Parts: sequence; C-alpha cells; structure tokens
Amino acid sequence: MNLLKDAYLKTRNRTVEICQPLTVEDYIPQPVDFVSPPKWHLAHTTWFFEEMILKKFITDFKPFHPDFSFLFNSYYNTVGTRVFRADRGNITRPGVQEVYAYRTFVDASMVQLLSTLNTLELKELVELGINHEQQHQELLVTDFKYILGHNPIFPVYKENGALINDKNAEFGWHTIQEGVYEVGYAGEDFHFDNEINSHKTYVQECDISLALVTNGEFMEFIEDGGYQQFNFWLDDGWTWLKENEISAPMYWHKINGTWFYFTLEGLIPIERDAILSHCSFYEANAFAAWKGMRLPTEFEWEVAADHLNWGSRWEWTNSAYLPYPKFSIAPGAVGEYNGKFMVNQMVLRGGSVATPQGHTRKTYRNFFQPHYQWQFSGIRLVKDKDA
Amino acid sequence: MNLLKDAYLKTRNRTVEICQPLTVEDYIPQPVDFVSPPKWHLAHTTWFFEEMILKKFITDFKPFHPDFSFLFNSYYNTVGTRVFRADRGNITRPGVQEVYAYRTFVDASMVQLLSTLNTLELKELVELGINHEQQHQELLVTDFKYILGHNPIFPVYKENGALINDKNAEFGWHTIQEGVYEVGYAGEDFHFDNEINSHKTYVQECDISLALVTNGEFMEFIEDGGYQQFNFWLDDGWTWLKENEISAPMYWHKINGTWFYFTLEGLIPIERDAILSHCSFYEANAFAAWKGMRLPTEFEWEVAADHLNWGSRWEWTNSAYLPYPKFSIAPGAVGEYNGKFMVNQMVLRGGSVATPQGHTRKTYRNFFQPHYQWQFSGIRLVKDKDA
Amino acid sequence: MNLLKDAYLKTRNRTVEICQPLTVEDYIPQPVDFVSPPKWHLAHTTWFFEEMILKKFITDFKPFHPDFSFLFNSYYNTVGTRVFRADRGNITRPGVQEVYAYRTFVDASMVQLLSTLNTLELKELVELGINHEQQHQELLVTDFKYILGHNPIFPVYKENGALINDKNAEFGWHTIQEGVYEVGYAGEDFHFDNEINSHKTYVQECDISLALVTNGEFMEFIEDGGYQQFNFWLDDGWTWLKENEISAPMYWHKINGTWFYFTLEGLIPIERDAILSHCSFYEANAFAAWKGMRLPTEFEWEVAADHLNWGSRWEWTNSAYLPYPKFSIAPGAVGEYNGKFMVNQMVLRGGSVATPQGHTRKTYRNFFQPHYQWQFSGIRLVKDKDA
Amino acid sequence: MNLLKDAYLKTRNRTVEICQPLTVEDYIPQPVDFVSPPKWHLAHTTWFFEEMILKKFITDFKPFHPDFSFLFNSYYNTVGTRVFRADRGNITRPGVQEVYAYRTFVDASMVQLLSTLNTLELKELVELGINHEQQHQELLVTDFKYILGHNPIFPVYKENGALINDKNAEFGWHTIQEGVYEVGYAGEDFHFDNEINSHKTYVQECDISLALVTNGEFMEFIEDGGYQQFNFWLDDGWTWLKENEISAPMYWHKINGTWFYFTLEGLIPIERDAILSHCSFYEANAFAAWKGMRLPTEFEWEVAADHLNWGSRWEWTNSAYLPYPKFSIAPGAVGEYNGKFMVNQMVLRGGSVATPQGHTRKTYRNFFQPHYQWQFSGIRLVKDKDA
Repeated sequence: MNLLKDAYLKTRNRTVEICQPLTVEDYIPQPVDFVSPPKWHLAHTTWFFEEMILKKFITDFKPFHPDFSFLFNSYYNTVGTRVFRADRGNITRPGVQEVYAYRTFVDASMVQLLSTLNTLELKELVELGINHEQQHQELLVTDFKYILGHNPIFPVYKENGALINDKNAEFGWHTIQEGVYEVGYAGEDFHFDNEINSHKTYVQECDISLALVTNGEFMEFIEDGGYQQFNFWLDDGWTWLKENEISAPMYWHKINGTWFYFTLEGLIPIERDAILSHCSFYEANAFAAWKGMRLPTEFEWEVAADHLNWGSRWEWTNSAYLPYPKFSIAPGAVGEYNGKFMVNQMVLRGGSVATPQGHTRKTYRNFFQPHYQWQFSGIRLVKDKDA
Repeated sequence: MNLLKDAYLKTRNRTVEICQPLTVEDYIPQPVDFVSPPKWHLAHTTWFFEEMILKKFITDFKPFHPDFSFLFNSYYNTVGTRVFRADRGNITRPGVQEVYAYRTFVDASMVQLLSTLNTLELKELVELGINHEQQHQELLVTDFKYILGHNPIFPVYKENGALINDKNAEFGWHTIQEGVYEVGYAGEDFHFDNEINSHKTYVQECDISLALVTNGEFMEFIEDGGYQQFNFWLDDGWTWLKENEISAPMYWHKINGTWFYFTLEGLIPIERDAILSHCSFYEANAFAAWKGMRLPTEFEWEVAADHLNWGSRWEWTNSAYLPYPKFSIAPGAVGEYNGKFMVNQMVLRGGSVATPQGHTRKTYRNFFQPHYQWQFSGIRLVKDKDA
Repeated sequence: MNLLKDAYLKTRNRTVEICQPLTVEDYIPQPVDFVSPPKWHLAHTTWFFEEMILKKFITDFKPFHPDFSFLFNSYYNTVGTRVFRADRGNITRPGVQEVYAYRTFVDASMVQLLSTLNTLELKELVELGINHEQQHQELLVTDFKYILGHNPIFPVYKENGALINDKNAEFGWHTIQEGVYEVGYAGEDFHFDNEINSHKTYVQECDISLALVTNGEFMEFIEDGGYQQFNFWLDDGWTWLKENEISAPMYWHKINGTWFYFTLEGLIPIERDAILSHCSFYEANAFAAWKGMRLPTEFEWEVAADHLNWGSRWEWTNSAYLPYPKFSIAPGAVGEYNGKFMVNQMVLRGGSVATPQGHTRKTYRNFFQPHYQWQFSGIRLVKDKDA
Repeated sequence: MNLLKDAYLKTRNRTVEICQPLTVEDYIPQPVDFVSPPKWHLAHTTWFFEEMILKKFITDFKPFHPDFSFLFNSYYNTVGTRVFRADRGNITRPGVQEVYAYRTFVDASMVQLLSTLNTLELKELVELGINHEQQHQELLVTDFKYILGHNPIFPVYKENGALINDKNAEFGWHTIQEGVYEVGYAGEDFHFDNEINSHKTYVQECDISLALVTNGEFMEFIEDGGYQQFNFWLDDGWTWLKENEISAPMYWHKINGTWFYFTLEGLIPIERDAILSHCSFYEANAFAAWKGMRLPTEFEWEVAADHLNWGSRWEWTNSAYLPYPKFSIAPGAVGEYNGKFMVNQMVLRGGSVATPQGHTRKTYRNFFQPHYQWQFSGIRLVKDKDA
C-alpha cells in the first residue's frame, strides 16, 4: 500500500507543479463551454477522492465544505445536481487558495486512509482517481493553453522547457499483415472499462507510417487550397469549416505572409519539421484524402503499436468510439465514466506531450468529437496495400 | 436492354403512383430542413437522369429547361451551384404540372436512349439512377408523412391499403456463433459503393431476436419512466431529449390518457402488438439498455440476416457509418453519393414498409444521424451469451 | 347598411383579384417566419369575420369547419390555442379551393347578416374586419413578392400593370413652424385604437422634403461606401448588417457590375429616378446620417402631411411605436390588435403602392421592427432649421 | 483647476474603494456578454483618460503599455480594432495588480497635467472622463452583483453597509397639469449630449405616484398569476418570459415556499415593504397593466421630478430612447458615446443606490434594452386623470 500512497502523492504533486507558472487570474476563465477553468480541474480531481473514497471508507467523515460536493461535480448525474458546465467560469469563490487548502485537506485524509486500510476495493478506486487526475492534468494543459492562446497579447506559460513541438525520429512504413488479432486490454493493471474485454478482430493488410505528419506537410495542404476544395472533406467537416471560418489548425496565425503559432513558450514562427498538432478529425481526414491515403482504424493502430513511436500526439483514427464486446456499465457514479459518450465521437490513440508519464498504453482509447482542435492531436497515415 | 428499360419505366411509374393521393398543395412545403417537398423529389430524381445520363450520352442534348439543372441538384457540389437545402420549400415555380412534364420529357428521352444504346457504362448509370429514385420513393413517403403528420388536422393520405403497421411473424432468438465471417457485397448485380468490398470480419457469439420491438413493449418503457432516467441514455441522447422535449416516438400523441399515433390512414389508437416505428437511435439504444440488452452491430445483423424476417423497419444498429476496407470515392459527382457522409451517422439495416420492393438486400447499408425519428425505423435486440 | 355591404364585398373581391395571377403552389410557402402563405391570408381574413362577427350575431351559427377557428387564428391568444406562426407553411390542407369555398360561405353569411341586422356594434366590427382585410391585402402583396423574389428563377407576378416603381412629382422643402399642434385621429369614421386620442404635441421648426429618396440617390450612398462605414449606423443596425451580410435594399442584385432589382414584373435594371423601396429603418437612418439630415418624427410628418404627396411608400419615421395619451386596450380579442406591439418597433407613416385605396390616412400609424425590408418602405428627409 | 483635480482623484479613489471587498478571482469573469469583468471596468476607465486626454495633451506621451489601448477599448470603433465584447472574460493577463499599476501611472500623469494645464477643452474632457468613470462605478456594482449572485453558494460582498434595499418615505400622488413644459438640460455644468437641447414639450394631465412599487406589491402580482397571463404583457415581453423561463425579478428565489433574494449582503428573506429592484421593462409594464395604470413618459417624470424622491432605483419610463431636437453626434470617438444606441432601448430616469453621489440629475437619461434585469431598476406608476 505504500506504493499506492506514493503513486497518489506523486500524481497530486504533479498537478500542483503544472499549475505553478499560472497567475491567480489564469485559474478562473471558462472561455468556451468545453474548456474548464484550471481552478475547477484542481477542485474536481480532489472532489473525486473525497466523494468516491473518503465518504465511503471513513466513518463519520466530515467533508471539507458542504457545498463542494455540489460545486465540483462534473458529469456525474448520479451524485446530485451538478453545476451547469457552462457556468464553471462564474464561480470565483471559493478562491484559488481555498481550493489548494481543499487539496491539502483531502490529501491528508487520503494519506491517513491509505496508511490504515488496505483492500482491493480501495486500491481500485484510488487507481481510478489517480488516472482520473492524470486525465485532468492533460486537460489542464490544453485548457490553459486555450485561455492564454486566446488572449490577444499571447502570454507565455513558461520560457523554457514548456511543451514544445518535437520531431519525428523514424520514417518509412510498417506493414500490417492481414489476419485475426487479439485487441483490448488483457492484463491485471489499471485500465478503463472501455478497453476491455480483450477480443479477436480481423485486420486487413496495409502499411502504416512510422512518422507523424509535420507542420511543413500540412502547410503544403493549405497552400494547395486544401481548405477550399470540398471534395477532400466529409460533409459535416465542410459545414464546420464554413460556419467557423476555419483555415488552419488551432493556434496558427498568418501574420504578414508568415505562419506563426502559439505555443506555451509564446507566439513563434512555425517550424516545418516539427510534428503537426491541434488539428480536428475533419482536418486529419481531409489531409489524408488529399494525400490519397487514409487514417488508421483503432485496431490497425493497436496491432502495429509495438512498431511505432508514439506519445507525442493523440492520433485521430477513423474508428468511431463504440463499446467493445460485452462492454457493460458499472453501477453508480463510476459507471458514468465512459459508456455514455459512445456516440458521435472518434477514437484517438497514442498519447501526447501533455499526457502524464505512465498514463497511457497501447490499448488506451481516447475520444473526442470530430471538430475539436484544442487537444494535442496529430495525424498518422495509412496506405492500403493495392489501392 | 429491354429489361433495363422496363425496370426504368416501372420505377418511374411507381413514383407517380405513390404521389397519386397528394393534392397540389401537398407537394410544396419543406417544414424542416431535412424534409424535402414532394415536388422536389419528383424533379430531383428526374434531374439525375438528365444530368448524369442524357447530357452525357446524347449529342447536342437540349435540356428541358436551362434552370432545372441548378434548381434540382441536391448535394452534388461537383455540378455547379446548388440551391440551399433549406430553401427548397420556397420554389413554387416551376409548378407541379411542369415538373410532371419534365418527367415525361426525360422519360421519353431515356426510352429513346435505352432503345438505341447498350453499353455497360450506360447500364450502370441507369441502374444507379433507378436505385437513386427508389431511395427517393422512400423519402417521399417519409417526407409527406411528416408534412401531413405535422398538420394539426392530421389529414389522411389513403383510407385503405396505406402503409400501416404490421406485426411480428416469428419470435425467439437466433444464436450467432463466434468466428470469422465474410461480409459486404460480393455479387455482380447493382450495389452501392459503400457495401463493397466484401471482406472478413470477426464476430462474437450472441443471440439476436427474431422479433422486432412492438409498440406495447415500448409503451412499458415509457410507463416505467424511461424518458425520465438519464442512466439509460447516451449523453448526447439525453441532451437531445431535453432540448427537444421528446417523450415518445414521432407521431405518438397522448390524448386524454390514451396513446394515439398518426399513420398514413390518419390518427388512430396505437395497436400494442404492431411493430414500433419512428424511433431515433437514441431511443433504440435507451430501450435496449432498459431491457439489459443491446443493439446488434451491422455485421452481427448481416451474418444472421438469412435467419431473420426483415423489411418492415429500418433497424438501428450500434455501428457507426464508416468505410469498408479499400473503400474509395469515385471521381466526379457520382462519387459524392455516399463517402462524404461517413461520420456522425449510425448504420441501419434491413428495409421498411416504405422501401420499394427489390431495392434493399442483406448487405445494404442505410445511415442517418442518431436523432432522426422520421424514417420507418425500429429496434431489434441482441443478448450477449454470458452477459 | 347597403353601403357597408358594398364596402364589405368590394374589399373581399379585391383580395381575390390580387391573388388571381398566383398558381396554386404560390399560395403555400412560408419562406421565413414573418412572411405568411397567401392561402393563410385568404383564410385568416375570413376567419376574422366568422369568429368575431358571425359567431356573435347569428344564433346557432354553424361554422364552415370546426378546425378553422384553430387553424387560422393569428395572434389572438384570447381565442384558444393558435397554430405556431412558423408552422403556417406546413398546412397544405385545407387546400386553396376549400379556402375559397370558406370565403364564399362566410361572404354569403355576412351578406345575409348585413341585410337583416343594423346595429352600431355590428357596423364597427365589420369596418374593423374590412380594414383588417385591407391590411392583409398589403401583406399578401409583400409576402408573395418575397416568395417569388427568393426563387432563383425570379418568376413574374404580372407582366404589365403590376406594382412598379413610381417617381417623385414634387421637389424642394416644406417648412414646419414651431408650436403646439393637434395630432391623432379626431373624426367619426373608421380608425384604429392606436391613432386616437387626438391630443396636443409640441413640434420644433424644421424643413421636410417634398420628394422621397430615389434609387439613384441611394446608389450614391452605396458607392460612397455607406455600408462599410460604421459611423453612419446605429449600433444595432451595424450588427444587423454584419450578421446578415446586408449590402443593399432587399431585391437589389448586382450582376456583372450592373444593379438590377426584382419587381412584380420580374428582374429588371434599376431605374435611378424611381422612388427607393424595401429599405429597413437602419438603412433609412444611415442614409439620412450620410446626408447630414435626419428622418422626421411621426408628428412632424403628420403636421406637414397636407403639404406632401404620399401613398407610394411607407415612410420610416424616427418615432418609436408607443401609446398615445389615454390609450387603453379594448377587452377581448379585438384588444390584441395593436397595443401589445408597442415596444421595439418604429412608426411608418403614409402608405404604399401596395396599400388598398382609401385604407390609409394622415393619422394612420403603421409599425415594424427596424430591420424589416420586405415592405414597400422608403425615406423622406428632414433638415433642422439652423443645424 | 484644483477643484477639477480633486474631483478627478475623488472619483478615481471611489472606484478603488468599491472594489476593496473583492477577491482577485472576482475581478475576472464575464458570465454573460452584457456583464464585464470588474478588472475590465478598472482598466477601461483608466484607458479613457490615457487615450482621450494624456495622448492628446502631453507631447511625446509614452503610454503605460502599448497593448492596453487595444485591450481596454470598449465600443469605440474610431480608436482602432477593439477586443470583442464577449471575450473580455478571457483576458487573464495583465493581472489585477498590473491594472492597479496602470491606474496609478495614469493618475500620476493626470495630476501632473491638471497641475500645469488649464484649458476649457481639457476641463470638458476630464469632466467627461469623471462621469464616464462614475457610470462604470455603477456597472461595476451591478456586474459583480451578477457574478456573485450567479454563484450557487451566494457569496457576500460586504456584511454591513452594502447596498441594501430601502423603503419609500412618501406616499400618495402628485398631479401634473397639462401644458407646455421646458425639458432637457439647460445649464452650464457637465451634462451628456443626449440631454440637451433644452426644448418645449406638451404634457397631458395625470397623477404620478410619490412612492415606488415595493416587493410586497410585486409579490401580489406574482401570486395573482401575473407571469401566466399574456394579456398583461407586451408581445415581445411574453416571448422573452417564455424563452427564458422568467417567473420573478432577477435574484429572487423561492425556497421551500418562501421568497428570498440575493443582495450584496447575501441571500436573505425578501422584505415586503422594501422597494422592488431588478425588474425588466417588460415586467414593469406588465405590473402597471395589472394595476390598471401605466408607466410615466420620460417628460412626465422630468416635469414632476422636483416633487419626487428619487435616486434609489432607476425608474423605467414608457419612452423609447430617441434623440432630442437638433441632437447631433460629435466628431471622433467621443461622439460614439450615446447617439448610436438610440433605437430599441427604453429610457430610465432617476438614479439608484448604486449610482455615485452627484452623478445623476433630473434631466439625466439612462437607457437599456427592455429585457435587462440586472440594473437596480424599479417601477413608478402613473394614473391618467379620467381614465
């Protein structure tokens, strides 16, 4: 159990570390409904431990504050009325300091609990809480990047060592052989309910790229009029592009004829050989069509994963987010975690520069609606064998 | 080639026959953007033959009217500017009679062409045109049902013999064995580009119902508070239900405590043992969750198809509409037919009482966005083997 | 009472005459929520006589059809549930012929009634019904102009003698002297509740133009960049213009560098000296600002009316539509006629080429929201004396 | 000029004083587009002095920060591109402390300038800046009340001495005699362009209430079903009420059958004899209709003002916000202050508990769109003499 306590504390401290360069003001805004205030992430991840673990395992547990259970719930309809998602930006109080006090209080209670109790049920819930917090660590980064990146003065998060764009280490193609493969999580360690049950699937022969698409390649697509030609686009993608006047990935700005992009180190000229980030599924799909190729399915990706570098971008697949065989929703609030989102979303595989170390794995299924650009999302191409 | 001409004329006449009970006024409205005016269906199916075939195969072909190519185009971005879909209800002229004259003109030219030319390319395009018109025959029915069914006085389409609700002939379950199956169209006859290439897929063991869900069964779901309990619903479905105040399938009306529904024979009391129709994917999915079962995938459905009655309802599957292996988009306007819709839609299998005879087949992939209720859509359940 | 019967029949026949060039299809669409289907105007004006008069004055009156009271009500909340305004385009049945039969039935009953009863109450209600129908005659014209004018093939209503644009007969300015004036209706004839009570008002000295603004003058405004300079526009007007991409009055189209406009005789080149029509209040106000002048108030207009030609355009004033002193709302449905619209609308004075003869008068207060362009609305300018 | 400097400093300090109880977090949110973040008010009022005065009167003036001119502009289209109003909540940096430093810098420069220069032009602009800041002092209060009042935990602004609801000191009616009156500002002191020119107007005889409507009286309206009966409401008001599910003034909450309201001292039970606040024009108008009375016109109000207590609520009048005779818009950015809002808004007279002392006067014309509730707005009734 000491290992679990260590893992708990390491994760909790990492969240605080990520926030260290933020000002108090940075913690507050919810600029659009899908971006949550950093303060909310800090509180909500804490709420998860208090609500799902401390209230359950500690007799007569006295919560930090009676209102917090209500204020920092997210989607969990099972646990009482929740604050409308779009109103999170309005909650100025409790303030940042009080939320940190809330973290300290819950951490102390958790450490106490983990020092005294050692059951499988507790272990599993703590692991879920840790993984939940890791997911929010990534959202924290993408969300404050959104906040800073939509400020007309483009503030810098951190001068050096921030999450900057990296480059491909390998090139060429890996061939996937046709046949039946086992996919899905089959181990004993932590995993989400959406990646079991391990099951057989049939995969067709194809070549999958070892490198991800770069900024330079994507620039060629733009310069070739990619955003002006409907035939590269899915119909919904074309509508999205027209209605939102999209003409580049998020954070790209053309200033006096030169492309710049906003990074966590500020606004800088685009590097052509850095890996592309912040594209939507629609853009990924259109780029692939323009190349005469396609995106991988999530199973092609998983089958090839051992041959790929991955972990710098969430890679859009052409698989819709759907349940695996015999998927079932756990009873209670924990069951609301994944299953209810299994429509109208596309699967992303891999992981990104913003994903906490050790959080992802090759069976991990991330998912977003196809128009979202604000994650560190990129493109890996596939060629059919005799297409 | 006489067979083709016969098939052509049979289809064309069937369209006219379907419209026979309509008044001139019924041909005009576009009550919501996804419902097209009946007149538009008549003209657009005709336009397809003129634009895609007559203009191509007849030298110096003189179109019926220079404006029609523009007015009756649908999604085909390749063929010049198209009238915005939402404005179709505004085009009162050309009138109904002129559209029928247009049909007569194109039919005469087509008959002439089919009597003199006999090439594979022509044959394939005519077959595409026939199948295209058959699809619009079904849309015609669902669209004028929508128009009549949203008139507060509930007009009757046809007193007897209209498309009324039918009943299950078989009950019980068919077991699908786990294993590799071949799916997709592999024959020589007409088919759409979205159902080839035939390919292998791996299917898990399960039981699929021989009967479709009835009105009576769905009423139990309603009476059990199915529309009030979020845990049965996908998150998007719950939002849809709340925003649109949905509390029953389309055309259901509770009047003084008794359920009625609008049929093409008018407003009548619901028959409990008739097969449920006009539900959305969200409702189908929630119903299955309430039953502790699930919807079939499109491949489970196809693998079991020979053991099932089907053809009375389009059956929602839990498969997203995605390309089959090696799917490629044909060049030109014909290529806009299917591929660009392959995101955010769910596959429906089978066919409905409104589907023209001979139009559908077991590899046929219909698709709609998950919130649509206006098609003759129903529910078939699946049980996992040891779930 | 014979005079009243004659007036009744003359008005009723005039409505039919206006519709004579329409096709059955033209009667059906409601292209936007503020435009009603011509069939609806025919039925609703008839409904008014049936609901407000026949049901009241004829014992055991048997309505033409029990549903019509519900179908053809407009805003009259007092008289039962009404069909949502935006759904009027969906009511294909009763058809056009049945609506004409409804007119014939009600006319026969009205003639019968007017031949046998002669009370002041009846007389006042019939006059209200006649004036109500005259208002709808004008809306009929503006509404089918909208329907035809938004059809990409620009159908012709009537080849000759349609309502075409006319020219100014007088030029120069009329000086209004400062002082107390009596305004509002003070006579014994028919009038609306919004134009009494006659009362004193104080008017400042100014000059009012004898001519209305022409197409040519407005073209100068356009060519001078009037639609690109925010400083001429009210803030709401600028937002409206940006959101709706407005760059000219309604029905104006620039084709290959030449201005055309849609008239009831079809699409023709703009005549520079014809009187401008189909501008919004926002455009009228911006044009006046560009000229360094302003629009008249409704009282300036009324005080000067005897010196002006008017009746070719509804003239936007800079007066908001507000109640006159001691305005009170009549009890019952008749009271819903005017009072409840007295916010967020601007007064128009005069009358237009589409206004039935004898319908308007100098105390007549027309009113619309400031963004509407679809009426035959124009601009008269005012100069302050020492501005 | 020392008086002016004193007035300047007094106003500037008052703004800081108002903000004293706020936390850093409270300064940030823009919960809805019409509510600005407190930090923005602090910066924008400062920007006004820098942009309109310091840049103009000080040679080689070096602004505090080159970006601020862009960031803290409001509606002034004349002064370069402005940040979209709805994005103000996203600007976390510059932070609160830097904005206070900005204030200090500008104040020092202003004091310096006012100590050395003494011209009429300077004086007029400083007075405009002071009055501008006073207007924002009131908006500050209404905006942070909105922020705190929409936090589910209802934070307290200040325990004692906050702006609480006050009571009527006088009752009964004052009779206004019919006749010509002079209205509008005619003095030499500071005034806005919208309240000159002083001019004659004709007012009808009526009685105006000495007391404002209380919470208790408004509760009777609610309990009598006032929000359920369309006939009391303007059509736009009824639509507003239905679409926004309005059933009480802003900040009123019915909890277990008892009415509470949020005040700057927190959530407390409603006091029946306190003066009603936070109603929209629509609610004010409906309440008056329910009473069988009406709202005053702005001129009735002004003519009676010497006989009234006023200054606790902004009182909705039934006058639309329109230009006075010979109103003209000043050239440049200062001219954008008032004129461009003169459509679709209603005039409020008086002043409120949140209005800075000495800011308002009897000719002062406040204005808002008729649906806004977030100001300290109330109701004064008028009875027509023989109505």
